[in-house]
Formats: sequence, structure tokens, C-alpha cells
Amino acid sequence: MILTVTLNAALDITHHLDRLRPHGANRVRTVAERAGGKGVNVARVLHALGHPTVVTGLVGGLTGRAIRAELAAAGLADRMLTIAGESRRTVAVVEESVGDTTILLEPGPVVGAEEWARFLDHLDALLPDAAAVVLAGSLPRGVPEDAYAHLLRLAHARDVPAVLDADGAALRMALPAGPALIKPNADELAAVTRLADPVAAARALHTAGAGAVVASLGADGLIAVTAQGGWQARPPERLAGNPTGAGDAAVAALTLGLVTGEPWPDRLTEAVALSAAAVAAPIAGDFDPAVHQALQTRVDVRPFATEELKPCP
Amino acid sequence: MILTVTLNAALDITHHLDRLRPHGANRVRTVAERAGGKGVNVARVLHALGHPTVVTGLVGGLTGRAIRAELAAAGLADRMLTIAGESRRTVAVVEESVGDTTILLEPGPVVGAEEWARFLDHLDALLPDAAAVVLAGSLPRGVPEDAYAHLLRLAHARDVPAVLDADGAALRMALPAGPALIKPNADELAAVTRLADPVAAARALHTAGAGAVVASLGADGLIAVTAQGGWQARPPERLAGNPTGAGDAAVAALTLGLVTGEPWPDRLTEAVALSAAAVAAPIAGDFDPAVHQALQTRVDVRPFATEELKPCP
Repeated sequence: MILTVTLNAALDITHHLDRLRPHGANRVRTVAERAGGKGVNVARVLHALGHPTVVTGLVGGLTGRAIRAELAAAGLADRMLTIAGESRRTVAVVEESVGDTTILLEPGPVVGAEEWARFLDHLDALLPDAAAVVLAGSLPRGVPEDAYAHLLRLAHARDVPAVLDADGAALRMALPAGPALIKPNADELAAVTRLADPVAAARALHTAGAGAVVASLGADGLIAVTAQGGWQARPPERLAGNPTGAGDAAVAALTLGLVTGEPWPDRLTEAVALSAAAVAAPIAGDFDPAVHQALQTRVDVRPFATEELKPCP
Repeated sequence: MILTVTLNAALDITHHLDRLRPHGANRVRTVAERAGGKGVNVARVLHALGHPTVVTGLVGGLTGRAIRAELAAAGLADRMLTIAGESRRTVAVVEESVGDTTILLEPGPVVGAEEWARFLDHLDALLPDAAAVVLAGSLPRGVPEDAYAHLLRLAHARDVPAVLDADGAALRMALPAGPALIKPNADELAAVTRLADPVAAARALHTAGAGAVVASLGADGLIAVTAQGGWQARPPERLAGNPTGAGDAAVAALTLGLVTGEPWPDRLTEAVALSAAAVAAPIAGDFDPAVHQALQTRVDVRPFATEELKPCP
């Protein structure tokens, strides 16, 4: 199975209404809610593809109970650890007349030092059964800034390859612990390296300790810098839709590729196809199977010279 | 004790942030949550004034559990009935740099016919201990449109005076069942009677079955049309603040007046003072005790001729 870790798991609430009137009272037409956070979304994609997954992370309070209830309803194996604090909610307000969304992100709980120590033991007990572990998303307050470095060392000691999807200090401090793969987006890449060129930035993170760097460049697809070479993979056309969750779908595909050991061009093709299929689905964690299948033969993957590390024009 | 009924109880969530960016991702700085709905807010005011209260109504799901947990934390006696549906949330997004608030109102659960029948029995069992009952707020889906008429007949059979704060069809259909007092605001009064003059409208509702009609006119205070005469009560000045909850504070004061049998001018003075004190407090259900006390001697109450039913100039 593939284990996904979501330290700041969320209850994602979606409010559908015609149009949001700021500074007014807005009647919500329909409400949807589901468990969220990047690791949960990755697990949802893997589960939909038929791969056994287990979700872990930290949840608490009645919002934590709602998260767990939805995980159970979705058929996702739940090994979340309960903490004292209240899990966060996100509220996405979807304006149907405008086709646009306003998002509110609560800060989430403060994790105690004893709770964090307990989570390290909890994760260590789950790792022996994992073919790979995915560490994804922001860190809750109270967890050390180098939290992902701790988790990566546990995975390394158990010989479990680890995929990291994080940004800022959490990403930078994790690199020396040697994640097998990281998947920053263009903004995260630029922020953490202060380099404008994504290839140069990916190369810098590869040098800093990441086994492979796959950066998502939105409509331009993915670039990969790995020990086996460099590639750029592009979708055949720009897709309209909801980009939230596209990165999580790419992480799911790349983690599967890591487990199966497929050649990099095949992994990247699958990652682009699944990302595009996620853009075509309205909710993060879902993907459109028809788009997924249609794109599997239509992704353009080209190597670039590893010396130059420049994408093909 | 005074019993308050909130058929569509809510979990009121408040998100504080600097400024809301529509169509963006907004990080919430702090989150507060409390049990809400008009009847709960009325009970909170009565409880703060030291009067024994019991809250009942319908709650369900994990949101219902969060509502009950907060009622317990607030020291409010909770006799809510649990239903299968999920209670609604309201989200108030407070922009601290602007001083303005955007509100999202979820529709709430659908109540089953068997659940509604069970609530009638549940309320009937609580009524013998009540000095008065307050029926306040919107009806959840699934409850009959004449729900308040049913509840008023139960109260009447137990000789318990009932105060109703409702609008639209729920108010109109309840009038023949003879509530002791109703408290529409200016908009509700106009909508239900199609009369522009609030005094004429209040008189129409009095004739239609309400023992007394006290209409809240915002900064213009209250007008009362009762069997004992007509009055207008005005605050000494316009108060800035949060008008949400001002009506609930007025209902709390008027219900106390009904129980104690004080003269109408005293009841109206207290209702205006408590309303103004609620406007001065940031959260619905709270009031500012200093404002409450300061205004008790400063409310201007004048009778108007019952034949004409025109407020004094």
C-alpha cells in the first residue's frame, strides 16, 4: 500500500450560490463537504485508480470527527492520529453565475510536543507495510519547522521511498534528509530557490538532496530533473477547469511510478494526463476518467540535455 | 424558567481576517464558533441577565454535536431534540480593516414527518415547567409551513404565554393561533401586511390574532400595539455597531416583561435599552452591560392615541 501523510488535514466545505455579495447576507443553495488536505487528495486519486492506500496525519475535535466520517464514507483506510486541538475547515464559495471561487482557509490546530512525538511513533509503526510514503501539505502550528526532515529519516530507516509536496521552509529544511521525489509548483520553486528559471531552480533542489525534482508549470506541464536525465512533458492543449488538486493528481501518478519503477517518460506522461483529468473535474481529489484516458497517448515528452538542463523550445 | 425554541439551530462560525479578497484564497487569522439561531440568542441574553432558561429545538449530525457542546460550555440548559439531518452552519467573515461582515447561511437539514411529530411531544413535555415560551427564527425544510401555529396551540393548551419572532408565511399562518406577542422588524412587517405604515401594519397583525405587536424599527426604536394601548419607544441617539442580535435582545426583554407583568412603558424601555446594548456588543447574543444600564433612564416612551394609532411626531 501507499501511505499518505496529511499533518494539517481539513474539512473542505463547498458552498454553492449564485453570486457572492460581499458585506451582505448570502443564502447558500447547496453545501458539500469532504475530507481534504493534499495527502488526503493524493490518497483519493490512488484509491480511485484501484491502488491500496492508507491515510494518516493529525485530526482533532468535532471537525476531526467529520473528516474521519467522510474518509470512511469514501472508503479510504483511515489511520489518522487524534490530537486535542480542533482540525481546520476550508470554505470554498463557488459562484455559479460567475464561475469563480472564493476560498477561506482556517489556520488549524496547535499541535503539542507530546502529540508530535506520538505521531513519530505512530508513523514508524505504519511504515513497514508501505511501498512508498507521500508527505504533503502545510505544517500545523506547534510542529517543528523541520518536521518533514524527521519523517523522511523515519522512512529512510525503514527503506520506504518518500515523496514530498511542501513549500517554503518546510521544503528547504527537508532536502538534506533526501526525499526520493519532490513536486514543487513554479511559484514554490522560485520562492525556495530565488531563481527565476525553473530548470535551474529544479537542478538546485536536486543538488540540495532531492532524488528527483518534478516541477509543475501549470498549463506548460511538468519538468523533471532526475539522476537518469531531464524531461519536459506537456499536455496537448490548455485545459479549462479547476486547477486545485491538479498537483495532488500529479503526485499520485509520480508516486505510482516510483513504486513500479517505470521509465521516467511514462511516469511523466501519466502525471500530465492525470493532472489534466483533475483540472477537468470540479472538486480537488477527483479526476475525469475520460480525460485521463484520452490524454495518455497525447502528452508530448522530450528529454533535455542534462549538461545544459534547458527545456526544448 | 423561560423556554426558547430554535427549530433551525445553527453553528455560527466567525472568521476574522484583514480583508476579504473575492475569488482569491484568504487565510483566516482567528476562528470563533458558538451555538446560534434566534431562540438560542434570546436564551443567551436571558441567561446573562440571571433568568433560568432552557433551550430546545432540533439539532443533528456533527454540527449538531458542536452546537450542543457550545451550549454546555455557555452554561445554557440544553433540551434540544436530535434529528437525522445535519444542522446548518453560518459563516460570518469579519474584515477588520473595513469593519464590515459578509455572511454565508447554509440551508440546514430536512426534518422528517416522524421527527416533527416527536418534537411536538418533546415540547409538550417541557411546557409545564415554563413561565413563557419563545418561538424564534426560520423553519427548517420538511417542517409544515404552519409549524408555529401547532406549537402555539400546544402552549395555549398548557396556559403558557408564547412570544413569536418569525416572518413571512410562518408568521402569517401562526396569527390565528394567538401568540401573546410578536416582534417583527420593519421589513418583515411590511412584507407580511403589504402596508407601508408600520403602525397600520402592526394594528393589522394585532387584529389578525397577536395579543401584542412590538415592531422594531432599527434606529427609530420600537412601536407597540397592544390591548392596553399604543406606544413608541426611542433610544436617545443612534448607536453604531452590529445590529445582528438586537432583535433577539428585544425579544428577551419583552418576554421577561410578559412574565413579570410590568407596565408596557417599562417593558419597552427595557427592550430598547437591551437592544442598544446588543448593538454595542460585537457578537449576536451578547450585550454591553454598561450601555444597557446607561440607557435604562434615557429611553423616550410616548403613548399614541389608540383610535388613530399614529406615533407622536
